[in-house]
Amino acid sequence: MDSNNKKIIVITGGGTSEKIDDVRRITNSSTGRLSKDIAEAFLQSEDVGKVYLLLGKHAVRPDEGYFGSRLKIIDIEDTNDLLESLRILLSRNQADVIIHAMAVSDYTVKSVMSVNELVDTVNARKALPSTQSESKISSNLENPVILLKKTPKVISYLRAFAPDACIVGFKLLSHVENAELVDVARKLLIRNDLDFVLANDARDIAGDIHLGYLVAKEDVREIYQTKQMIAHGLVTRTLCS
Amino acid sequence: MDSNNKKIIVITGGGTSEKIDDVRRITNSSTGRLSKDIAEAFLQSEDVGKVYLLLGKHAVRPDEGYFGSRLKIIDIEDTNDLLESLRILLSRNQADVIIHAMAVSDYTVKSVMSVNELVDTVNARKALPSTQSESKISSNLENPVILLKKTPKVISYLRAFAPDACIVGFKLLSHVENAELVDVARKLLIRNDLDFVLANDARDIAGDIHLGYLVAKEDVREIYQTKQMIAHGLVTRTLCS
Repeated sequence: MDSNNKKIIVITGGGTSEKIDDVRRITNSSTGRLSKDIAEAFLQSEDVGKVYLLLGKHAVRPDEGYFGSRLKIIDIEDTNDLLESLRILLSRNQADVIIHAMAVSDYTVKSVMSVNELVDTVNARKALPSTQSESKISSNLENPVILLKKTPKVISYLRAFAPDACIVGFKLLSHVENAELVDVARKLLIRNDLDFVLANDARDIAGDIHLGYLVAKEDVREIYQTKQMIAHGLVTRTLCS
Repeated sequence: MDSNNKKIIVITGGGTSEKIDDVRRITNSSTGRLSKDIAEAFLQSEDVGKVYLLLGKHAVRPDEGYFGSRLKIIDIEDTNDLLESLRILLSRNQADVIIHAMAVSDYTVKSVMSVNELVDTVNARKALPSTQSESKISSNLENPVILLKKTPKVISYLRAFAPDACIVGFKLLSHVENAELVDVARKLLIRNDLDFVLANDARDIAGDIHLGYLVAKEDVREIYQTKQMIAHGLVTRTLCS
């Protein structure tokens, strides 16, 4: 909370984007629309003093002019950038609520080489290089491959960064049974000591229609039908709990 | 030309974006700002009847409402999409000028697999698979690699698509000597039977500052200092020649 007892909210949204070289990136197609709705719903509450919105490139943005100093948007490029921005932000501000809705890339770029170079390296039992090309991949490379490596799991740091915050994670799967979706969400919640996980399936999202299950440790607390319902439901659940 | 003797202009801009899976793409960081300026400069000329602007995702867009039916924006995703859109557009419309400024990816995605799978396939002298993953890459794949393959060279089709048009290609290099830049641009021009190539170096581009060499077959015809100068210079050179 800030000095006036108003709540501080941290929201992540959109997608990370991992650099391949000076002109190419691996991007995520997340639009950030849900996070925009969530940020605006929190800003409608008189209990909220400030919303920090960490947003990927190309995500849709709330109107910063309209909300003035109550809204601060922080631009995020890649997964490391997100992790470091959260680390700094949460060390300087005691967040009351964290809504981590950003589509974070599971992988980033380790290096770029030709197939032959890669196969020779592995056959010679040498370590694969972990260097990032500084300028453009030559357009004459035959059969290039992009080697990927895992990114840090940002969600696993949140509880340590903000021990007392109400933290909501997101889990997006694609074409799975409801029971499996809720089960995966609950495991994510327990593993990372979160308060809620909003579980959703890509096939149930189309424009404003957005089916979401608010999963708590013991049960499914709510089922939402639209982005607006998710946004306002999260405000009610996290500010009043 | 159209029925009123007004000229038809086709401009490409922004960057292509190649699909990896349902949520990830390889994108190009081109903003499309130069193409927007070029399109607007052509639309200021009374000799121009219609501008078709083929634009990559996330590129900045001229105001479609303002220019009405004289401007038609066509959204482009990947390189194949660009090639097919140009093929159809240029078969239906006799373009007078083509400005091909889009940053076209040299590579698209062939397939995604683990390093081990790739090495085993090559060692067994089997063909590398060319299948695109339909949903998300599993976040549990250890050491995944993205195999790339060459895209068709769109610039090499333009003369066949539009035998009588004035065609301007673009060549962007990074940190090379002027003489080399002009030489590479001239080879591109001759190889693809273009009228001009606008040669530029990434280090000479910052906001509106944009150093550009208009290379013709015989000589460097003009040197521009800004995006606005490039835009208006291209209008003068291509409409009056």
